Amino acid sequence: LVRRSHRRADGRFLVEGPAAVSSALATTGLAELFVTAEAAERHPELAAHATAEVTPEVMAALSDTVTPQGLVGVADLLDVPLASVLPARLVVVLAYARDPGNAGTILRTADAMGADAVVFPDDSVDPYNPKCVRSSAGSLFHLPVVSGGAAPGILKALKENGLRVLATDASGGTSLDDADLAGPTAWVFGNEAWGLPDDVVAGADERVRVPIHGRAESLNLATAAAVCLYASARGQREPGGCRT
Amino acid sequence: LVRRSHRRADGRFLVEGPAAVSSALATTGLAELFVTAEAAERHPELAAHATAEVTPEVMAALSDTVTPQGLVGVADLLDVPLASVLPARLVVVLAYARDPGNAGTILRTADAMGADAVVFPDDSVDPYNPKCVRSSAGSLFHLPVVSGGAAPGILKALKENGLRVLATDASGGTSLDDADLAGPTAWVFGNEAWGLPDDVVAGADERVRVPIHGRAESLNLATAAAVCLYASARGQREPGGCRT
Repeated sequence: LVRRSHRRADGRFLVEGPAAVSSALATTGLAELFVTAEAAERHPELAAHATAEVTPEVMAALSDTVTPQGLVGVADLLDVPLASVLPARLVVVLAYARDPGNAGTILRTADAMGADAVVFPDDSVDPYNPKCVRSSAGSLFHLPVVSGGAAPGILKALKENGLRVLATDASGGTSLDDADLAGPTAWVFGNEAWGLPDDVVAGADERVRVPIHGRAESLNLATAAAVCLYASARGQREPGGCRT
Repeated sequence: LVRRSHRRADGRFLVEGPAAVSSALATTGLAELFVTAEAAERHPELAAHATAEVTPEVMAALSDTVTPQGLVGVADLLDVPLASVLPARLVVVLAYARDPGNAGTILRTADAMGADAVVFPDDSVDPYNPKCVRSSAGSLFHLPVVSGGAAPGILKALKENGLRVLATDASGGTSLDDADLAGPTAWVFGNEAWGLPDDVVAGADERVRVPIHGRAESLNLATAAAVCLYASARGQREPGGCRT
């Protein structure tokens, strides 16, 4: 299950470490849970759900990490169809992203900012990649995940359901400070290095850039996403952008 | 120079990869620059500044990374005294942070948001750690870095120079949406796991939290910092927080 093709064939993925295991047990549940004796002592409330106790050697073989935390669960894939999350107020589309750590951080941020769903189109990183699961800090289990489908069709469906589709573009477009964020919004974030292809940008309602005031050339992907989602969450709660 | 004690003793640090080397050459310069023949071919404009061409084996020994990019520079430490950056409009204090990747990302974000300086008090990660240098994507060379000193004394100096000191606190305080960000501001970010100690929080003017709307328990440190610095940059440019 460390490999994407095996995860898809089995319909299952690995859930490692106490934080993720705890989130899974509190939400969708786990098909299986393996613990070491040491981890069972440290986390008795989680170990109570264990399928089997295993040796540190077996744990090392099951785990994706160099220093396993002694708890590995197996969960069913969580995918839901796009239609099931629509209509929605705030949706994140992560297109062509390649770094699972970034993807997990964006899942965590999307959860914190009250997003309704995160969509991973074809050619994006797999949300069930063990690194993504870890860096999502449990948020993978908190909000619906849509996996697969061509990005242009996904954007079309979002627009037909009343969402304003905003494509992030470091090179231009409307400044985030000036974007109209009061209504239902879908954010499209692209690849870490090259952003979004033209056909995806063309399918958006507007291009939006995070304003850069210093000499940095850009922000990292997870950072830019955090700033956009914070502005959106705030814009939806304070229509007009006035505090007083 | 991969070790902090050696960097401090020598007063120098490693600058790896084409992006960081390019930023260093464009700003403070490099004391030495080593390139492999392959990297010299790919980056002739950088290789023109090389001290020596080295074999891939020597490069691997010089480099901190598993897959060296063929360019390693040595630069003098960039520290400036806190007094030299005051008065200021926007300052970041990174106290007790341990993850150099986070620190570098925050340096990059601080640069993008127009911060005047980033302060690394005693007991924070070393800004010259190779991972921090890499993840700063050149921003370490773009804005002044202050290194060392006790956090409470640093906060006192910032207040005496007219900055409003805001301590981030996931557990409470004013919501970022409601914080007064119009004037000169210093943000204090803490440790990835446990935040800020009481004596540092007590030295701040206000505790501020990023509002969480979903089920995520918190944001990662670099994400929270990005959101706060974006809100600050915007608050200083749009006093009152009204767009129209």
